[in-house]
Amino acid sequence: MPDVILGIDVGGTTISAGLVSPEGEIIAQAEAPTHQAGPGSALPTLGSLVARLLAQAGAEGHRVVGLGAGVPGAVDAEQGIVGEDVQNVPELAGRSLAAELRAASSLPAFIDNDVNVLALGEWRFGAGRGANSLVLLAVGTGVGGGIILDGRLARGASGYGGELGHIPINFDGRHCFCGGRGCLKTYVSGPDIATEARQRVKEQKDSLLLALAGGDPANITAARVFRAAAEGDQLATSLVDEVCQALGAGIATVVNGLNPEVVLVSGGVAQSLKPLEAAIVGWARRYAFARALARTRIAVVPLDKRASVRGGAALFLCETDRSREAPK
Amino acid sequence: MPDVILGIDVGGTTISAGLVSPEGEIIAQAEAPTHQAGPGSALPTLGSLVARLLAQAGAEGHRVVGLGAGVPGAVDAEQGIVGEDVQNVPELAGRSLAAELRAASSLPAFIDNDVNVLALGEWRFGAGRGANSLVLLAVGTGVGGGIILDGRLARGASGYGGELGHIPINFDGRHCFCGGRGCLKTYVSGPDIATEARQRVKEQKDSLLLALAGGDPANITAARVFRAAAEGDQLATSLVDEVCQALGAGIATVVNGLNPEVVLVSGGVAQSLKPLEAAIVGWARRYAFARALARTRIAVVPLDKRASVRGGAALFLCETDRSREAPK
Repeated sequence: MPDVILGIDVGGTTISAGLVSPEGEIIAQAEAPTHQAGPGSALPTLGSLVARLLAQAGAEGHRVVGLGAGVPGAVDAEQGIVGEDVQNVPELAGRSLAAELRAASSLPAFIDNDVNVLALGEWRFGAGRGANSLVLLAVGTGVGGGIILDGRLARGASGYGGELGHIPINFDGRHCFCGGRGCLKTYVSGPDIATEARQRVKEQKDSLLLALAGGDPANITAARVFRAAAEGDQLATSLVDEVCQALGAGIATVVNGLNPEVVLVSGGVAQSLKPLEAAIVGWARRYAFARALARTRIAVVPLDKRASVRGGAALFLCETDRSREAPK
Repeated sequence: MPDVILGIDVGGTTISAGLVSPEGEIIAQAEAPTHQAGPGSALPTLGSLVARLLAQAGAEGHRVVGLGAGVPGAVDAEQGIVGEDVQNVPELAGRSLAAELRAASSLPAFIDNDVNVLALGEWRFGAGRGANSLVLLAVGTGVGGGIILDGRLARGASGYGGELGHIPINFDGRHCFCGGRGCLKTYVSGPDIATEARQRVKEQKDSLLLALAGGDPANITAARVFRAAAEGDQLATSLVDEVCQALGAGIATVVNGLNPEVVLVSGGVAQSLKPLEAAIVGWARRYAFARALARTRIAVVPLDKRASVRGGAALFLCETDRSREAPK
């Protein structure tokens, strides 16, 4: 009876779950809208997805050995408690979610921040396989990070390790909702790219970007900015180059600070960034030490939900490996 | 016969060495100008200091169990090889210094980057004692960093881990000798503070700072900038506040990125920064997540050579603890 792991990604819109082999193969997958039963209903949704996949595993003759789940925001991974800052799924704030998942499934269960989980998945099964150290930047609606050094997540003293979206890359720069200034996020997140573009089209009403948005700045999205740039629109090209520059500076901070073997850019915006990989690496080269960068592989890896589900499985495997290595 | 460790700091100007108890007490100390026997003579100087302290240990009935040394630049700590970029002591570039020290002393010997070693010393014996994670920023002629997470140095894939002087905190900012732009170093290192002040006095010839420098901008030093600021000079006050702001942004990068328990500012400029500790922490608070910062203790710790010598001993102790924990 082959062993499988239940990997889960709790997102603000969708909860995805899957049965994952120890080699990272997804054997079955299911998902549901996070709040399908109304606001505050993430937990019943999660519970029914877990039950459904456990039943499927049983029916198909798989033994489920444990589960791992990624949730938004800071997480006390050791205690299995969701942080107080969890956006989009506020009903999880402060909950002992690992214990609840253990109770619901009768299985060992672990939780961690969703970007940490994604980083573990890419490190164990994906684009960073075999590396000793890896940093993943997830660029989407927000910007998060996951840092793996010497095979361990750098979770930090209170679960904020890897909040790379809020490192100041321009200390006199744009104001950020977090209270800081010049945060990496304010230059590269999807909504920030769209906001900046909306400002700029006011001065350049003949831009292709505005045409792509049907003439209404409110319809400008990051995806349309990238599309307009690909078609040669000057405003969009200049803005996209600034996005690449800011990302390059953020990557250089990671490279000079931590000198990891692999830096991955993932998240919802990564699909649009993939054709710009060479430009991003070029900007990183302008800011980073050549000798440090020489040992670093930088790649843009478009996100799919399978990566997050595999990440949940990787979390379970890493936690159990670690407890074997150093029992408490 | 009490055990002691030989701790060494190889600087561009001075080599310091000492016998250190396993509790961090310095029992004997010696130093010599690095190039006392002429350019390129660091190795004989080092050899004679080692021999002198070993003889003293023997005479005083101490058993020396091993040695640890900090050297400038990137170091391959695992192989014990000095990097190619070692400024100030170029004769060490590429040398298997750990093996040479082992051969000269018949003792187990370890080397690492000098700021990593300083961080280990503060973590094991000093201001960061007992912390699980610590980041040290050494602000002097240059700016370096040492990162300890979960009790281990983050050395990086090629020994460049912790090069926090070259993280871009202003991606369109000042040009740096490293080829980057807006590196933290360009705002806070001693020479950069002096260079900026020399520019600014051109516009403000009645400043106290210029008087303190005897009317000659060439005599402006960082120490004089801090002194003029303390005496209320407007130009110097404004520049010093910018130094604190840049340091705050650098510290926030560390806090949001790694969420360590302790951040220390040390190095040659730390003496001048000590009275500004509250201002630096205030700026860090502007850029960092409050919840991450809430668990971080930030302190300015003026450098003395004893700290570096103790660091060498800490390196030896950490390396031997680690090899006991996970023999290769």
